[in-house]
Amino acid sequence: MTASPHAIRHVRVTPIAFRDPPLLNAAGIHEPWALRSIIEIETASGLVGINESYGDQPMLDALAQAAPALRGLSPWALNEMEARVAALVAPPVQTRSEFLAQQVSLAPGTHVSKTVAKVVSAFEVAMLDLQGQLANAPVVDLLGGAARTHVPYSAYLFYKYAEHIERPYAPDPWGEALTPGHLVAQARRMIDLYGFQSIKLKAGALAPEQEAAGILALAQAFPGTPLRIDPNANWSVATSLEIVARLRGVLEYYEDPAPGLEGMAAVARACDVPLATNMVVTDFAEFRRNADMGCPVKIVLSDHHYWGGLRATQRLSTLCSTFGLGLSMHSNSHLGVSLVAMTHLCASVPLLTYACDTHYPWQDDEVVQGGRLRFEQGSLRVPTAPGLGVTLDRQALARLHDNYLRCGIRNRDDLAQMRKYDPAFTGRQPRF
Amino acid sequence: MTASPHAIRHVRVTPIAFRDPPLLNAAGIHEPWALRSIIEIETASGLVGINESYGDQPMLDALAQAAPALRGLSPWALNEMEARVAALVAPPVQTRSEFLAQQVSLAPGTHVSKTVAKVVSAFEVAMLDLQGQLANAPVVDLLGGAARTHVPYSAYLFYKYAEHIERPYAPDPWGEALTPGHLVAQARRMIDLYGFQSIKLKAGALAPEQEAAGILALAQAFPGTPLRIDPNANWSVATSLEIVARLRGVLEYYEDPAPGLEGMAAVARACDVPLATNMVVTDFAEFRRNADMGCPVKIVLSDHHYWGGLRATQRLSTLCSTFGLGLSMHSNSHLGVSLVAMTHLCASVPLLTYACDTHYPWQDDEVVQGGRLRFEQGSLRVPTAPGLGVTLDRQALARLHDNYLRCGIRNRDDLAQMRKYDPAFTGRQPRF
Repeated sequence: MTASPHAIRHVRVTPIAFRDPPLLNAAGIHEPWALRSIIEIETASGLVGINESYGDQPMLDALAQAAPALRGLSPWALNEMEARVAALVAPPVQTRSEFLAQQVSLAPGTHVSKTVAKVVSAFEVAMLDLQGQLANAPVVDLLGGAARTHVPYSAYLFYKYAEHIERPYAPDPWGEALTPGHLVAQARRMIDLYGFQSIKLKAGALAPEQEAAGILALAQAFPGTPLRIDPNANWSVATSLEIVARLRGVLEYYEDPAPGLEGMAAVARACDVPLATNMVVTDFAEFRRNADMGCPVKIVLSDHHYWGGLRATQRLSTLCSTFGLGLSMHSNSHLGVSLVAMTHLCASVPLLTYACDTHYPWQDDEVVQGGRLRFEQGSLRVPTAPGLGVTLDRQALARLHDNYLRCGIRNRDDLAQMRKYDPAFTGRQPRF
Repeated sequence: MTASPHAIRHVRVTPIAFRDPPLLNAAGIHEPWALRSIIEIETASGLVGINESYGDQPMLDALAQAAPALRGLSPWALNEMEARVAALVAPPVQTRSEFLAQQVSLAPGTHVSKTVAKVVSAFEVAMLDLQGQLANAPVVDLLGGAARTHVPYSAYLFYKYAEHIERPYAPDPWGEALTPGHLVAQARRMIDLYGFQSIKLKAGALAPEQEAAGILALAQAFPGTPLRIDPNANWSVATSLEIVARLRGVLEYYEDPAPGLEGMAAVARACDVPLATNMVVTDFAEFRRNADMGCPVKIVLSDHHYWGGLRATQRLSTLCSTFGLGLSMHSNSHLGVSLVAMTHLCASVPLLTYACDTHYPWQDDEVVQGGRLRFEQGSLRVPTAPGLGVTLDRQALARLHDNYLRCGIRNRDDLAQMRKYDPAFTGRQPRF
């Protein structure tokens, strides 16, 4: 394959930063800048496949460490790429207790145990983008073709402050959200703008009773709209059960109320709302643990960025259907390349019937040509152009990279950021 | 997609028959002619994708019923094809006891519950052949690229008679095989011809002690060569345990000794040789049953013809690795299109580390241009030409179709054939 005119010649990774609002969560609060990386894989023939992934320093280091593995590979050689990445980026050996300790942290995408899967995913999508250009087919076709023409997303609500404590730029247009009334207004604005038909509330930030009151207010304001709440494992089992009792008949699913698979199992035994997770079933080994326990978690919220890519998530969907589980998708702060990759993936997975999470409405910048992607009635139309169907706006990329250079953030730290507002904040979980 | 110049315009299914030797198995004996079907899917642009599948009457009926579903589809639209086939070819509702009764029958590929998966597989491979032609890439590349350049197969030994009772054509060159000495000679000839480096014995035909003696003779004649025995669930649990005790230290794995998953579990509890199956884990629902029972079966012998295709088998590989199972492949009497599809698939599945089964050495005819595929040291080289990398020899196809028209066989019936030799043969299982 090395003789192919389309052999991979070069990998370029550009860290970027973009404005991110002061969104509250169990771990603390978003910093003023969110980090991502833009991956470009270039062939000897001059084609460029792109992708977007994490932008924290350990991920940039891992991408740099793994990039030489791609040199000379055919864009079709995904299995070989995976083998080479796994050989170059061996995960550190962990004890069981280290592994379990990680499980209750906020963002599974940052776990070191996920490094290989994250790097594989970062390269896989860019190689699929190249494949699509070579085959004159959209990425969704390389994944078996579209099972749907539009992929639905949910309105992802956050409690938030009006502006960042550092005031690094003008306040965002969303204003403060700390009460049920604020939440309803936020949902109204987001639905007016984008047409979402499901609502998710990021919880675990305020007192649980306040957050339950927020959900009840949303249920009243948007009757018939599926609602979800996600306290990010910041509630004890007792609190989880107390709150779900208040929300009887209101929730579509209950995302990560209590810490650990054991905590989730304890909640599942006493509650008839299906439990969803992006914290305790985050890889195939954890999938098996859940299955071995009789599947207390009923809905896996995948994220192709840390599950090993689009094809790995398709395989996850077969595991889910085999074990009678549902599937939807988790999100971090991201731009359009990640969103369009999710859209190709979700279009190709018949099982993916829930509206997916996305932070996209919270970002106001973009790195792709043509600017911000447009939702139609809460959904994105699956692109039909070859590959991902988006290309980089190089001026925007340069500007976002300049943000990265200037912002000073190299690793996301919601806890440290929260201590700027409240020096007594410990981030200890479960807090409630 | 219907406007595409490459939209599917026509599906042609040609039943064929080819000589098959008098091979003994648990159900009886092979008839003089084996049936297959050749599937051709033609696009409006004149491309033709091909495949090979089952040729029995119910399968031909199902293919004919489902073929209109493809009209106008893009060759990339595999998910849509699956949905349309499932809608057109709904499996009959079965009781649990009917389902379990089927599990002990010889050929899971003939189960009515598998019809959708079988038709999907028949079409999927031909559509992948089209995709490869469109993308100028071999099918293995559409499956993630080659994890190996050669796919190893095993020498598949059978007890057999010297010729068919009807004497429909001249005897095959393999002669009679009813003793350990015959078996060793058969293995020697097959290994001399093809270079296989693993040996599988189809058992369940003679007395179990005789068959164990056959394995021991092979172990002595081919030291270090991995050996397997497959009685096709024709042994009781007690017999299975008695025989495996005689074969201590000799078997690579123990395939389907006793009937049913419960029977296999009983064997597994008392035996340290890993159990393999193509009889009790034959679809994703049965995979889950095995997992729920703590995985008494440790190696799944897939067959893309009834597991739903090449991509479904890749997904099965992820289920296997998630649950710590091994994976290899099962075979029926077949020609080169099936063999080359298996080769693309196996090259793309890193987990597939066992040499696969193939009946190919028992056939002497071929339907692809260039004639019989050639093994190199027991392996097939993965094709690098676009698509499957084989095309139909239309004269051979016409001749094999003529065989079909003349042979009179429309459904495989090893039991009825055996009764021609032994009118008292009942086929009741387990016989020993």
